[in-house]
Amino acid sequence: MDHSVRSSRAAWRDKLYQIIFEANTPAGKRFDIALIISIMIGVAIVMLDSMQEMQKEYRRALWIAEWCVTGLFTLEYLARLISAPRPWVYVRSLYGVIDLLALLPAFLSIFFPGAAYLMTVRALRLLRIFRILKLGRYLVEIQVISSALRQSRQKITVFLTAVAVLVIILGSAMYVIEGPEHGFSSIPKSIYWAIVTLTTVGYGDLSPATPWGQLIASIAMILGYGMIAVPTGIVSSELIRAHAVHHTLIQPVVCGECMLEGHEIDAQYCRGCGASLVSETQRMIQ
Amino acid sequence: MDHSVRSSRAAWRDKLYQIIFEANTPAGKRFDIALIISIMIGVAIVMLDSMQEMQKEYRRALWIAEWCVTGLFTLEYLARLISAPRPWVYVRSLYGVIDLLALLPAFLSIFFPGAAYLMTVRALRLLRIFRILKLGRYLVEIQVISSALRQSRQKITVFLTAVAVLVIILGSAMYVIEGPEHGFSSIPKSIYWAIVTLTTVGYGDLSPATPWGQLIASIAMILGYGMIAVPTGIVSSELIRAHAVHHTLIQPVVCGECMLEGHEIDAQYCRGCGASLVSETQRMIQ
Amino acid sequence: MDHSVRSSRAAWRDKLYQIIFEANTPAGKRFDIALIISIMIGVAIVMLDSMQEMQKEYRRALWIAEWCVTGLFTLEYLARLISAPRPWVYVRSLYGVIDLLALLPAFLSIFFPGAAYLMTVRALRLLRIFRILKLGRYLVEIQVISSALRQSRQKITVFLTAVAVLVIILGSAMYVIEGPEHGFSSIPKSIYWAIVTLTTVGYGDLSPATPWGQLIASIAMILGYGMIAVPTGIVSSELIRAHAVHHTLIQPVVCGECMLEGHEIDAQYCRGCGASLVSETQRMIQ
Amino acid sequence: MDHSVRSSRAAWRDKLYQIIFEANTPAGKRFDIALIISIMIGVAIVMLDSMQEMQKEYRRALWIAEWCVTGLFTLEYLARLISAPRPWVYVRSLYGVIDLLALLPAFLSIFFPGAAYLMTVRALRLLRIFRILKLGRYLVEIQVISSALRQSRQKITVFLTAVAVLVIILGSAMYVIEGPEHGFSSIPKSIYWAIVTLTTVGYGDLSPATPWGQLIASIAMILGYGMIAVPTGIVSSELIRAHAVHHTLIQPVVCGECMLEGHEIDAQYCRGCGASLVSETQRMIQ
Repeated sequence: MDHSVRSSRAAWRDKLYQIIFEANTPAGKRFDIALIISIMIGVAIVMLDSMQEMQKEYRRALWIAEWCVTGLFTLEYLARLISAPRPWVYVRSLYGVIDLLALLPAFLSIFFPGAAYLMTVRALRLLRIFRILKLGRYLVEIQVISSALRQSRQKITVFLTAVAVLVIILGSAMYVIEGPEHGFSSIPKSIYWAIVTLTTVGYGDLSPATPWGQLIASIAMILGYGMIAVPTGIVSSELIRAHAVHHTLIQPVVCGECMLEGHEIDAQYCRGCGASLVSETQRMIQ
Repeated sequence: MDHSVRSSRAAWRDKLYQIIFEANTPAGKRFDIALIISIMIGVAIVMLDSMQEMQKEYRRALWIAEWCVTGLFTLEYLARLISAPRPWVYVRSLYGVIDLLALLPAFLSIFFPGAAYLMTVRALRLLRIFRILKLGRYLVEIQVISSALRQSRQKITVFLTAVAVLVIILGSAMYVIEGPEHGFSSIPKSIYWAIVTLTTVGYGDLSPATPWGQLIASIAMILGYGMIAVPTGIVSSELIRAHAVHHTLIQPVVCGECMLEGHEIDAQYCRGCGASLVSETQRMIQ
Repeated sequence: MDHSVRSSRAAWRDKLYQIIFEANTPAGKRFDIALIISIMIGVAIVMLDSMQEMQKEYRRALWIAEWCVTGLFTLEYLARLISAPRPWVYVRSLYGVIDLLALLPAFLSIFFPGAAYLMTVRALRLLRIFRILKLGRYLVEIQVISSALRQSRQKITVFLTAVAVLVIILGSAMYVIEGPEHGFSSIPKSIYWAIVTLTTVGYGDLSPATPWGQLIASIAMILGYGMIAVPTGIVSSELIRAHAVHHTLIQPVVCGECMLEGHEIDAQYCRGCGASLVSETQRMIQ
Repeated sequence: MDHSVRSSRAAWRDKLYQIIFEANTPAGKRFDIALIISIMIGVAIVMLDSMQEMQKEYRRALWIAEWCVTGLFTLEYLARLISAPRPWVYVRSLYGVIDLLALLPAFLSIFFPGAAYLMTVRALRLLRIFRILKLGRYLVEIQVISSALRQSRQKITVFLTAVAVLVIILGSAMYVIEGPEHGFSSIPKSIYWAIVTLTTVGYGDLSPATPWGQLIASIAMILGYGMIAVPTGIVSSELIRAHAVHHTLIQPVVCGECMLEGHEIDAQYCRGCGASLVSETQRMIQ
C-alpha cells in the first residue's frame, strides 16, 4: 500500500467523520437534522406499537417500519465505528452506549420475542436533540441555562441533601403515626409518600387518616410549598449573574479522541485530552 | 355617482372603521366596552345552557337570549366586513376567524341540532379582553410582561424541549416497569402520567404500584419540583431587565390593511405592510 | 354641667380611645395582645365545638367558654362604640362589620339554634393579627411585602385576566371533548377542573379519560407549570426594587374619623379625611 | 497523682475531643465520614426491618446488624461524654438529645418489645450530614443559603401568619358550605383540606362537591398558586443580596463549652459563652 492510497482512504474517512460527528459544515448539519427526524420516527413507531388498537390493525406496517429504522440506525452505528479515529472511545462514550442500546433489542427480539419490549430504550436517543439545538440560534440560550445550573450545582446539592434528610425523617414519623393499617406499610413506602407530599404532587394513593398524621402532613405540605423558594431563588440569582457575564461562544465540534463537547470558539485543541480539534481535511485546506 | 357622493360614503365607512377597529376615540372606546360586555353575556349564556337544571327551567329564556347575542354578533361581523378597507384580510386574520366561528354554530344548529354543542367556541372571543386591557392603564403592564416573555422565548423553548425529552424517557421507562397491569397501558398514556407527575399536578388516576415504579416516580417528582426553578428564574431575570429598559409606548390602532397591532406611538405607517395608520378622516382634520 | 365635668368625661373617653384604637402606648399594646389572645381562644372554642367527640364530652364546658368569649367581645364592641369619636364610621368600617358579625350568631342562636353554625365567622377576627404584627419589629417586613404587592397589582391583574380567559377556554374545550359521561357535566364544572389542573392542585375527582382529553390536559398542565413563573417573576422583581427604595416608617395609629391606617411617621393629620391624628390627651401633654 | 499524669490524661482526652467534636484535623474528618456512613447504615437497617418481606427472610441478619450499629453508637456516645469538657452541656444540646434518642429504643426493646418501633427516631441522626457538608467545599454554599434564609426569616413569618389566617378562614367557610355530609366533618379537618389545597398538593381525599364549595376551592387554588410568588420573591431577592455581601468564612469548630457552631475564621473565643475555641493541644503547638 503506497502513501497516496493510504492518504486517500484517510481523506475519505476524515470526510465521513466530519459529516457524522461535526456540525459546522452544511453536510454535517443536514446529517444531524436527518438523524433527529429518523430518531423521532423511531420513537413514534415504538409508541404506536405500544397501543393495543394500533398493534392489532397495523401490525405488519409497524413491523416493516421498525426494521427500516433499525436498519438505518445500524448503518449509522457502523459508519460512526469506521470514521471515528478511536472507535473504542466512541463505543464507551455516553452517546455510543445509547446508540448501541437502541439497536440491540431489535436484534435480540429475533431470538427472544420478549426483548421487543426493551425497544422503548430508543427514547434515550432523543437526547441527541440537544446536540441539534446547540447548532444555530439556541446555542447561547443553552449555554446561559447550563452555566447558571453549573454555577448553582453545589447549592442545589445542599438543597437536595436537606430534602433527602427531611423526607426520610417525615417518612419515618408517618410510618410510626399512621402505620400499615392506613397504607403506610413500610418506611420506604412512607418516604415515597413524603416525596409525593413535599413536592406538592399529591396523588392521593396514600393520604393520612389520623388527626396526628394530618398535622404532620400539613407541616410537610407547608414546608414543601415554602421550600420551593430555595431552588427558585438560587437559579434566579444565577441567571441574573449569567446574563451579565456570559459572552463566550462555543464551536459545534466533538473531540475525535475523547468525544468531549463544548469547545470555545478559538480552541484548537481539546481541553479534555489535548487532541487537535482541527480535522485532517481542514488542516490540509489551511 | 359624482365625487361628493363617493367621498361622503367613504367618510361614513371611515367613521365606522374608526369606531369598530380603533380605540383612540371616545366612540371607539365605548364600542369596545359594549362589545366585551356582550361577549361576556354570550359566554355566560352558553355556560348556563350547559347546566342541566338551568336548561330545564329557563329553556325558552336562554333560547331567546342566545339568538339576541347571535344577532348582535352577526351585525358586528357585517359591520366589520363593510368598514374594513380590505375585508378579506380581516376574514383571514385570527380575530376574523374567531368572530366567524362564534357565529357559525348558532346558524348550523337550525339544520343540525348537534351543532349547538359547538357554541362553546364562543369562549375564544374572550381573547378580545386583552384588546380592551391595552387601552388605558394596563397598556404598560401588558407590554412589560409580553416583552419579558418575548425575550425569554428561546430559553423557554430549550426548557420545554428538555421537558418533552424527559417526559418521553420517563413515560417509556414506566411503561416497561409498571406495565398494563397497573394502568400504564401504552407509552402515550405513560407519557401523560409523566406530565401529570413532573408538573406536580398529581391527579392520582394513574400512580405507581411497584417499588421500582415508585422510585422512578420519586425521581420524576423531585426533578419536576426542582425544574420549576428554571422558567421562574428565566422570567424573573427578564422582568428585572424589562423594568430597566422598557419605556416605549404603543398606540391602540389596528392596521386597516393587514390587521397588525402594537404600533409605536410615533408610527405613521404599519411596520408589517407599510400601509398608512392615519385614517382618512384623521388626515382630513390634520 | 360645667366645663370641667365635660372636659373630664372627654379625657376619659379619649383615654379609652387611645387604649382600644391606638397601639403606641404601653396600655394600648397590652390591650391589643390581650385581644388577639382572646380571639385565638374564641376561634379554638369554635373549632373544638365542631369536632363530634369533643362536642359530646365537653358540651357544657364549651358552652360556658363560648359565652365568656362572647361576653368579652360584646364589652369590647360597646367600648369601641363609646370611645370612637364617630361611632357610625367604626360600625361601617371593615373591622367594625367583622366585630359585629362575630357577636351576632351567638345571640341569634338563643332564638334560632341553627345560628350557632355561623359562629365560625369569628375566624375573620384573626385578621386583627396583622394589626398586632404591625407593632414592633414586623412593621418594616409587612410594609416591604405590601408595597411590592401594591406595585405589582396591575401586572397581577393582567395575569389573572389571562388565567381567567384560559380557564374558560380550556373548560369549554374539555366539556365538548370529555362530556358529561366522564364527569364533565357542565361548563362551570369543567372550568373548576381547569382551575384544579392549571394551578397544579390536581385533586383527581375529575380527570380526563379520552386520549384527546388527556392531550388537552397535558397542555393545560405544562401551561400551568410554566405560567407560575410570571407572578413569581413579577413579585421577585418588585421585592428587589422595594428593598432598594423602602425606608419610610409608619406610625401605629388609626384615624379616629375614618378608621384609615398606615400614616407616615411625621403625619399629624389623616391623609384620608384630614382629621387630626394627635388625640386630645397627647395635645394637652405637648 | 502528680502533675505529669494529670497533664497526660488531659492530653489524651483533648485528643479524643478533637477527633470527635472538631473536624479540622485529618483524624477528625475521617471520624466524621465514618460516623455518617454508620448512621446511613443504621437508617438503612431500620428501613429494611420495616418491610414485611425483608423482615421475614433476613430476620436474624437484621437483628445482628441492628445490635452492631447500636453498639457503635453507644461507644460513640460514651466517648463524647468522656471527652467533652462539660458533658452535661453536650447531653442537653440538640445533637446530644438526638444521639441519646437513637440509642434508647434499642435498649428499651429488650424489656418492652414494642419499643423497637421507635427505632425510626434514628433517622434524626441524619441531620449530622449537614455538619459533614460544612467541611470542605459545601461550606460557602450552606452559609449563603442559611444567611439568605436568616435575612428573610421575618418576612417569611409574616407570610406564614397570612397563610395560617387564610387557611383557618377558608377551612371554616368550607365546613359551613360543604358540611359533614361531604367529608368536611370538623373545622380542623376542613383546615387540613385548606392546607392541602392552598399548597397545591391536592390529594383528593377531600374535595368539594357543591357548586359553592367548588367556587371557594377555586379561589383558594388561585390564591395558593399566586401566593407562592411571595416566599419565592423574598428568597430570590435575599440570595441576590447575599451573593453580593457574603465573603466571611467560618471555621469547622464546635465550642467545647456550649456546643455552639459557626465561628468566624479569625474567632479565638466562642461568641456564645466566651470560652476559648483553641483546644489545649493546639495551644501547645502554637
